[in-house]
Amino acid sequence: NSKLKIFTLNSNKKLAEEIAKEVGVPLGKSTVTRFSDGEVQINIDESIRGCDVFIVQSTSGPVNEHIMELLIMLDAVKRASARTVSVVLPYYGYARQDRKARAREPITAKLVANLLTTAGATRAIVLDLHAPQIQGFFDIPIDHLVASPILSDYFLGKNLDLSEIVIVSPDHGGVTRARKMADRLKAPIAIIDKRRPRPNVAEVMNIVGNVEGKTCILIDDIIDTAGTISIAAKALMESGAKEVYACCTHPVLSGPAIERIDNSVIKELVITNSIQLAEDKTSPKIKELSVAKLLGDAIVRVFEEKSVSTLFD
Amino acid sequence: NSKLKIFTLNSNKKLAEEIAKEVGVPLGKSTVTRFSDGEVQINIDESIRGCDVFIVQSTSGPVNEHIMELLIMLDAVKRASARTVSVVLPYYGYARQDRKARAREPITAKLVANLLTTAGATRAIVLDLHAPQIQGFFDIPIDHLVASPILSDYFLGKNLDLSEIVIVSPDHGGVTRARKMADRLKAPIAIIDKRRPRPNVAEVMNIVGNVEGKTCILIDDIIDTAGTISIAAKALMESGAKEVYACCTHPVLSGPAIERIDNSVIKELVITNSIQLAEDKTSPKIKELSVAKLLGDAIVRVFEEKSVSTLFD
Ligand SMILES: Nc1ncnc2c1ncn2[C@@H]1O[C@H](COP(=O)(O)O)[C@@H](O)[C@H]1O
Ligand SMILES: Nc1ncnc2c1ncn2[C@@H]1O[C@H](COP(=O)(O)O)[C@@H](O)[C@H]1O
Repeated sequence: NSKLKIFTLNSNKKLAEEIAKEVGVPLGKSTVTRFSDGEVQINIDESIRGCDVFIVQSTSGPVNEHIMELLIMLDAVKRASARTVSVVLPYYGYARQDRKARAREPITAKLVANLLTTAGATRAIVLDLHAPQIQGFFDIPIDHLVASPILSDYFLGKNLDLSEIVIVSPDHGGVTRARKMADRLKAPIAIIDKRRPRPNVAEVMNIVGNVEGKTCILIDDIIDTAGTISIAAKALMESGAKEVYACCTHPVLSGPAIERIDNSVIKELVITNSIQLAEDKTSPKIKELSVAKLLGDAIVRVFEEKSVSTLFD
Repeated sequence: NSKLKIFTLNSNKKLAEEIAKEVGVPLGKSTVTRFSDGEVQINIDESIRGCDVFIVQSTSGPVNEHIMELLIMLDAVKRASARTVSVVLPYYGYARQDRKARAREPITAKLVANLLTTAGATRAIVLDLHAPQIQGFFDIPIDHLVASPILSDYFLGKNLDLSEIVIVSPDHGGVTRARKMADRLKAPIAIIDKRRPRPNVAEVMNIVGNVEGKTCILIDDIIDTAGTISIAAKALMESGAKEVYACCTHPVLSGPAIERIDNSVIKELVITNSIQLAEDKTSPKIKELSVAKLLGDAIVRVFEEKSVSTLFD
């Protein structure tokens, strides 16, 4: 195991520590700070010549700082003669900018994939990409892991009456994700079907599926400002749901998110540690699950040149 | 002139406005903001199909924000079918990370050049690179402008006794720069010759050249924390200089810089607007000169496919 090295940057040190523990290696020694003018200063404090290096970094907020840290670290690792350099991205920022929704927009999710390759990444390990098509943005091998078994198993471990559960997608885009979780929980699905009858007219919220008297579990990949999820929960309760849980892989939780969740009808919000929450982003409603074992296993399998697909669901 | 478009990002809008005025075109319409989670959101609000686009951005602090804005704008412009995309970088951040000074360091100045090309830049126009070798980091055509004639002409315009002037380099690395200015002012040069006799022993400051009774003009490319320049000015006064001016192209002025300049023996600090100073970075000692005409002329010459070398000094 002497040639496997795991380094962390500044976005998610706690998760990186946990991953290193799972893998059974100490974290690589490095210092990632700033010069007086804000430029990133990186020192790698041990030899990595000929090693298989894994760099753990979520490109969560401050996203531009975290992307530049990662690119500069890649440059340093490449120049230090590592054999391979894998980027482990528990959260892949800019994933929502994955197409031109209007004329003259950038496709930043593709740009970042290219930047990572230019800087020296030879492989990527990612978790729950906003759209699975983003895998195709990378010109290097990519392993795409999914967290829904971890979220599902948490709900299986609760004393819920399984026959009374409905898995709910908060929008049309998330139905496949809801279906996967429903399979594991042997539950039916429902969909929040928002539509705008005419431009400049309030949205109509319609629920496709039966939720009356049911325990609803809303699932999404990203919860950002928590607007969609808290409105969806309200609509479910108004349609006669017994209670509403929500879960997601990536707790971006920007702006008014925490306040909205606290004030919402959501009973519990289950998230993963793909993004390390800022100290002040806490709520008694939030339950955090770890993806350290999932990512650690993937790192070991990549290092041992074994297929990672067994980790898929 | 209908095909020349100049866009600005957020680092130096004032200079971009001035450049557009010099060139005689309105600034291109675009909005560069942030989504709730801090991701860059860019909208280009006019057609640029078939155009020669120039994007003005200094990669000054917050440097990582400004670099990412530039990369994402490049992606958007490229996808919007521009004919050529030139990046105009009045200040090129990360230029001091231009070599491995120790083992396992990144060479970020090279990385950023590669990132710009990957994102879509077809040409670069830069001003006073920290080291002229950085030109070679770019695999696209690059025009390297120098601001020292602007700084020199300012001092020529003052009523100084030219026979009493000495141009001083604050360190060994800047002697060529001092020599150039001295040529224009027909003045001799001096050098602040710092050296550490043994490790962990205070530096000895020695002045090579005659400064007694002279008006000294310290010149540097970047003034960052202003430590070097204020110590140099003090050493010059202690060696009998009559008065000390300082000048630089790039006023990074981070951390204690303004305080140090205010408290220093420096009579006046002459800078350019290659970096737009934050509102709170003001000092009665600072005199700002504009590089708008220099950059505007270069843009027009590039657009007209004329040589830019006449702008060199
Ligand atoms: N960071 C962000 N926050 C909010 N919206 C975004 C962000 N990035 C991209 N978008 C927009 O979200 C839309 C895509 O989201 P979706 O439909 O969920 O795939 C696009 O129209 C993007 O312009
Ligand atoms: N932003 C920065 N602020 C201070 N020092 C830096 C910065 N970037 C790089 N350096 C260091 O400055 C040295 C190069 O400066 P110079 O000798 O003036 O070319 C290198 O040892 C770098 O590690």
